[in-house]
Amino acid sequence: EGVDVTVARIAVVAGDGIGTEVTAQARKVLDAVLPGLAYSEYDLGARLYNRTGEVLPASVQQELAGHDAILLGAIGDPSVPPGVLERGLLLKLRFDFDQYVNLRPSRLWPGTTSPLAGLKPGEIDMVVVREGTEGLYVGAGGVLHRDTPAEIATEESLNTRHGVERVIRDAFGRAARRERRHLTLVHKTNVLTHAGGLWSRTFAAVAAEFPQVTTEYQHIDAASMFMVSNPQRYDVIVTDNLFGDILTDIAAAVTGGIGMAASGSVNPERQYPSTFEPVHGSAPDIAGQGVADPAAAILSAALLLEHLGRPDEARRVSEAVAAEVASRTPGAPLRTAEVGDRVAATA
Amino acid sequence: EGVDVTVARIAVVAGDGIGTEVTAQARKVLDAVLPGLAYSEYDLGARLYNRTGEVLPASVQQELAGHDAILLGAIGDPSVPPGVLERGLLLKLRFDFDQYVNLRPSRLWPGTTSPLAGLKPGEIDMVVVREGTEGLYVGAGGVLHRDTPAEIATEESLNTRHGVERVIRDAFGRAARRERRHLTLVHKTNVLTHAGGLWSRTFAAVAAEFPQVTTEYQHIDAASMFMVSNPQRYDVIVTDNLFGDILTDIAAAVTGGIGMAASGSVNPERQYPSTFEPVHGSAPDIAGQGVADPAAAILSAALLLEHLGRPDEARRVSEAVAAEVASRTPGAPLRTAEVGDRVAATA
Ligand SMILES: CC(C)[C@H](C(=O)O)[C@@H](O)C(=O)O
Ligand SMILES: CC(C)[C@H](C(=O)O)[C@@H](O)C(=O)O
Repeated sequence: EGVDVTVARIAVVAGDGIGTEVTAQARKVLDAVLPGLAYSEYDLGARLYNRTGEVLPASVQQELAGHDAILLGAIGDPSVPPGVLERGLLLKLRFDFDQYVNLRPSRLWPGTTSPLAGLKPGEIDMVVVREGTEGLYVGAGGVLHRDTPAEIATEESLNTRHGVERVIRDAFGRAARRERRHLTLVHKTNVLTHAGGLWSRTFAAVAAEFPQVTTEYQHIDAASMFMVSNPQRYDVIVTDNLFGDILTDIAAAVTGGIGMAASGSVNPERQYPSTFEPVHGSAPDIAGQGVADPAAAILSAALLLEHLGRPDEARRVSEAVAAEVASRTPGAPLRTAEVGDRVAATA
Repeated sequence: EGVDVTVARIAVVAGDGIGTEVTAQARKVLDAVLPGLAYSEYDLGARLYNRTGEVLPASVQQELAGHDAILLGAIGDPSVPPGVLERGLLLKLRFDFDQYVNLRPSRLWPGTTSPLAGLKPGEIDMVVVREGTEGLYVGAGGVLHRDTPAEIATEESLNTRHGVERVIRDAFGRAARRERRHLTLVHKTNVLTHAGGLWSRTFAAVAAEFPQVTTEYQHIDAASMFMVSNPQRYDVIVTDNLFGDILTDIAAAVTGGIGMAASGSVNPERQYPSTFEPVHGSAPDIAGQGVADPAAAILSAALLLEHLGRPDEARRVSEAVAAEVASRTPGAPLRTAEVGDRVAATA
């Protein structure tokens, strides 16, 4: 566990829009808590695509592969057709670097306000372990008879015992290390009987290795409802790629918005670099103004520290973010760089 | 538009658990506002399955096909393996009776409390038009090398221009008849590029026929978030089968729970009967006690009246439900039959 941080290499892909602004703050905080990490910057995203038509040149991908982690800001710009950068960069990294554990913690932090009435800070503390390399995200499918009345389009969800078992085992391990030790499997077994069967049977098999973890199953529709009516019930959730995408956005919404939502796309074996990035997008509407909240980017850097085997530094960063957020005057304008300064100073 | 109600035939499938209790109240209210409809009762669900191993005998299905509408309570019991009744009855009716418009209105009624802070009754009034006969619900897929390390499982989403276009056109028609005339397409075009492309291109094509309707597109993850942070923004939503399943449960949660969530699985051409049922399940834990809230079942009966071409009676029923709910003393125990009596008396 842990890499030698004196030689750890971090690739920085700040990306588009507010990505560059929030990533600068994440860097600032990393420098404060763990000086001496080696960084290389890669200019990927809309600029590169618009200049060259390339999203992720093979040579760049090879260089990225030589790093321990990727610190990513945000990708996307109205000038690029939807899907190009998502599929060509974000999803390509997750798939090619076998980042099968997509980690998305959600906490109701002090000072944040949930849209849910009566919820108090501390009452929500969960992590969604989303599968990152299979399911409907594989891109299998096609279109026949395009733009005719006979057109059909397919999307295929591909699920392997290999892929399902490893992410479920990872989730059980995480649940076992937490206080409540509770793991919820979310799927739609009553409709997606083939994939659902694989997920449930694998879940039951791995559960036998973790008798200390209590378990539960919920359909995705019910889980989406409970995420609103009773999010406190969740500790760790494990689910497939698409359900995880949806559930984590609901989780972000009930904990006060995606301004605080961090994520890691992790290859636990460290055979490939893992990517750490805020869940939010590039927000072109507010880009360049220095008003984007860097909290999610900084919290993603904390996940990166954890991945580097530095739990103490990770905790210092999360706690500094929590304190900074709690100290904000509601309604007062926020300056991206000042938030970074305050977190860096106290972390 | 409209069937001759003096000869309209309604099949009643009260089903399992609280299904029988809430359906009895829906019947009571229908009798009060529109006496003389012809009803036939069908005993389908867990009882039939456990007695005979059959879910929907071909002869029964043929009889059901001869009706104008099906009033359904709820299906499901712990004694039946998950998926059997859902796939064999609920989904089979939707597919075989070509019920391609799955209609799910959500309103924040006076007297209901949303878990969302500060939302006032009347502020949410939307309807989700969920596709009902395609997508991931078709059951296409399979399992190879079951229970071995080499196991794989697939699920295929099948989408046709035919199926997508007709539900989108239905949704535009509904949006055009509403006050705000706003229609949101929800999909995941940046990942599900094949099916997403079909949905977006079809949406754009049909939009040209409805210049009076304003339109918007959102990814399912973003829409799930906005459904929590800003549900007021929605008027009509059109989406695929699975996304509709998830979104309507979030919509139910933010409007105070599935106790008020009604649905219709509609074949607009009336070539086959349409099914009207509450979104909630059979709730075996509270079955037989006379304490289940029949509001969703009664509101589903209102959708049935609308389908029979009786909008005035439909409105009377919804308004009577709204008044009954508004008159409840928060925290006071609820008696299923008394709710039915009060609604029937005022409708
Ligand atoms: C941008 C998109 C491809 C991505 C996803 O769907 O995984 C995003 O929504 C996320 O959650 O990281
Ligand atoms: C019971 C189940 C098959 C069904 C669905 O997924 O459509 C239910 O959740 C619904 O929303 O009507």
